[in-house]
Amino acid sequence: MNFTLEKSIEILERTPGVLTALLQNISDDWTSRNEGGETWSVYDIIGHLIHGERTDWIPRADIILSKKPNRNFEPFDRLAQLEESKGKSLTQLLDEFGLLRKKNIEYLRSKKLTGKNLEEKGIHPAFGEVTLSQLLSTWVVHDLNHIAQISRVMAKQYKAEVGPWIEYLKILQV
Amino acid sequence: MNFTLEKSIEILERTPGVLTALLQNISDDWTSRNEGGETWSVYDIIGHLIHGERTDWIPRADIILSKKPNRNFEPFDRLAQLEESKGKSLTQLLDEFGLLRKKNIEYLRSKKLTGKNLEEKGIHPAFGEVTLSQLLSTWVVHDLNHIAQISRVMAKQYKAEVGPWIEYLKILQV
Repeated sequence: MNFTLEKSIEILERTPGVLTALLQNISDDWTSRNEGGETWSVYDIIGHLIHGERTDWIPRADIILSKKPNRNFEPFDRLAQLEESKGKSLTQLLDEFGLLRKKNIEYLRSKKLTGKNLEEKGIHPAFGEVTLSQLLSTWVVHDLNHIAQISRVMAKQYKAEVGPWIEYLKILQV
Repeated sequence: MNFTLEKSIEILERTPGVLTALLQNISDDWTSRNEGGETWSVYDIIGHLIHGERTDWIPRADIILSKKPNRNFEPFDRLAQLEESKGKSLTQLLDEFGLLRKKNIEYLRSKKLTGKNLEEKGIHPAFGEVTLSQLLSTWVVHDLNHIAQISRVMAKQYKAEVGPWIEYLKILQV
């Protein structure tokens, strides 16, 4: 499947609704626990998605489109949400994510990107040159990655409860 | 986290809404393609969930609760949906799954299960003795497993589009 902006937005615009459908008003037991050690809870993951809306996807797209000679991306802080989410309920975080995402999609549409724009490049701190279409594809896959991760973190809370069925449930084995 | 019926139903009752939020009216490209070879598309997975509502979870719970001497489960047909879904649109499948799930949760609640009921046993064709609470826990984890799988199948359609970011996206590497 080749990248298109419309098919990418199909996923990006659905993610907040998916997360709300799965998580709104669910017991804290499902969302406050992690996979052990320093891994993330569902609550942490939603905070990470919010931080990405603020500092990652659109700011990087703007750098690519800026036509400045220096198109280096700022490194992304993968732990920022541990501070930023403090004191907020999961419902607040879900609402915040939904609003930011809506604004970001409107902004993206307002750029009226051409095929040529999508091939323009920025400099990733680890990978070097990357194109706008690669950045936007990654935004989409990043959403799906975290929906899968959230499902896995929740599933693992029942790891001891499924008895012998654990053998058939790959999600409990990763 | 210990099994409770209410926390299990929290997930079971959300799954149809999650799938609808993610899939309703999305381009076929996201839902008709698979991970290669004999793997399943999103469309196939929804058919599998429907077949489970009809022949797996509740029928097996009924066997466990039947108090009959023979409490052997019927083996589950993992390929039945390839025939049963034929000619149906994804929207039809999502609606069908939602209705069946709603009915099954109502049925489950109507049984007013006690702690003793949850420890009653049936005979799984591969594992032997399993309890009702293990069956119901597995139903929950099975939902989350397939939400994660659907996210992965969709993400993989953009595998070639993310460029060097593939290195950071674990979902594309499984």
